[in-house]
Amino acid sequence: MMEYSNKSTYRIYYEDTDAAGVVYHANYFKFMERGRTDWLRSLKIEQSNLKNEHQVIFVVTASEIFYRRPAKFDDEVTVTTNLTRMRGASIHFDQEISVSKVLVCSASNIVACVDMTSYLPKRIPAKIRKIFEHG
Amino acid sequence: MMEYSNKSTYRIYYEDTDAAGVVYHANYFKFMERGRTDWLRSLKIEQSNLKNEHQVIFVVTASEIFYRRPAKFDDEVTVTTNLTRMRGASIHFDQEISVSKVLVCSASNIVACVDMTSYLPKRIPAKIRKIFEHG
Amino acid sequence: MMEYSNKSTYRIYYEDTDAAGVVYHANYFKFMERGRTDWLRSLKIEQSNLKNEHQVIFVVTASEIFYRRPAKFDDEVTVTTNLTRMRGASIHFDQEISVSKVLVCSASNIVACVDMTSYLPKRIPAKIRKIFEHG
Amino acid sequence: MMEYSNKSTYRIYYEDTDAAGVVYHANYFKFMERGRTDWLRSLKIEQSNLKNEHQVIFVVTASEIFYRRPAKFDDEVTVTTNLTRMRGASIHFDQEISVSKVLVCSASNIVACVDMTSYLPKRIPAKIRKIFEHG
Repeated sequence: MMEYSNKSTYRIYYEDTDAAGVVYHANYFKFMERGRTDWLRSLKIEQSNLKNEHQVIFVVTASEIFYRRPAKFDDEVTVTTNLTRMRGASIHFDQEISVSKVLVCSASNIVACVDMTSYLPKRIPAKIRKIFEHG
Repeated sequence: MMEYSNKSTYRIYYEDTDAAGVVYHANYFKFMERGRTDWLRSLKIEQSNLKNEHQVIFVVTASEIFYRRPAKFDDEVTVTTNLTRMRGASIHFDQEISVSKVLVCSASNIVACVDMTSYLPKRIPAKIRKIFEHG
Repeated sequence: MMEYSNKSTYRIYYEDTDAAGVVYHANYFKFMERGRTDWLRSLKIEQSNLKNEHQVIFVVTASEIFYRRPAKFDDEVTVTTNLTRMRGASIHFDQEISVSKVLVCSASNIVACVDMTSYLPKRIPAKIRKIFEHG
Repeated sequence: MMEYSNKSTYRIYYEDTDAAGVVYHANYFKFMERGRTDWLRSLKIEQSNLKNEHQVIFVVTASEIFYRRPAKFDDEVTVTTNLTRMRGASIHFDQEISVSKVLVCSASNIVACVDMTSYLPKRIPAKIRKIFEHG
């Protein structure tokens, strides 16, 4: 089983909160996507390059999330991104968001590699696959 | 098994889309929350009343979602909200989003009744429970 | 001086609010864009057609806004959109947002017609201009 | 004339863009608010403290913005925040957003000090005013 991990931190601003005084639930998915984007960036994979050279983009196809306790304005959240499985045209991530080591939410996100115009599944390009496998 | 259903429609605006040209994945959770809010409104349950009279709010505690095909700018999405189970302090919803009867995504969302200040689980007020049971 | 007017109403959901308990200030610009989009739709102008037939899109180039009093969760906001001036490659809108006839904010928004790839200003297509002039 | 300046940088993620392929116009206001929040933080002013000790919050009351050229996915934007004037109950900011020193937009934002419950204007607390004046 492969595993490749990344940690990034982001600040919570007013824009992320709602009238309940805490982070709006859907926004945790934004933070997880920032985490995956910064993980790609840490591997020197540019998404513009995925488009121009390989005509593919990555899109989320399924997610499961458990909300534990809310993050609040001014908190600094840490997003952990673990690649736990790679298939022909998809990648499985386990992701967690925490504040000062206290778990905020944990999720699994499946991301598919699709053709950038037809949106049909497409094999992850070999070059990219190699980077994912060896970090 | 109880089941209470509601359908609402919403327009997709530029704000909902991203640079991939389609609705940003996290935003489908916004539409599902609009669906649950409008379902409560259709039952004449006011969330301000839940706070003032019962000191509770409803918060999402877990979700599972499968994305089928993207919605686009100018689309009109239909959100179907089905209450499929009610427990002491939580409610289970099955929700679907579609465009012209074509499925965009399907999800299960668990919503808990919590004390509005402590955020601890609290039994759904009897009055509210009755409305949920009889529509 | 030409003037063409449109009114649309939108509901405030949790997603629109922030931890101060009211609508997040930047989100009023979303509601004004919904207003302009629905104004175009009321004139039977499709933005996909603007792209495909005329290779143009409309983009905001300048705004001025005065916030009077906040809108809150569950409010129904009315967005008034008035076209107050049309130039060769731009349109001026006066827009207001109100709740139960009480003014929430008033703004001027200048929208330019630009080439969809170069983003350079482009004369508003004659066909579209005619519709703007005669409603 | 007083002037106190701050620069912060933020990454553009998918969530910030729209189907036109660039940053959604209203989102620049989010980045400017992040800039003002980080400016307050750099002065060691905590907004929770403003609430608890002084019962005030700062809210935007007027803005003027000129959009010059769009920022795109993956860009790193620099937000410059200049306090240009302080009145009894309000502060004027000049703010600019740029990418690699190329101007994206420039704006003036007026922020008022208001009572956190009544939302009525309230004199900026002397202690806070002193920090603003001396940086």
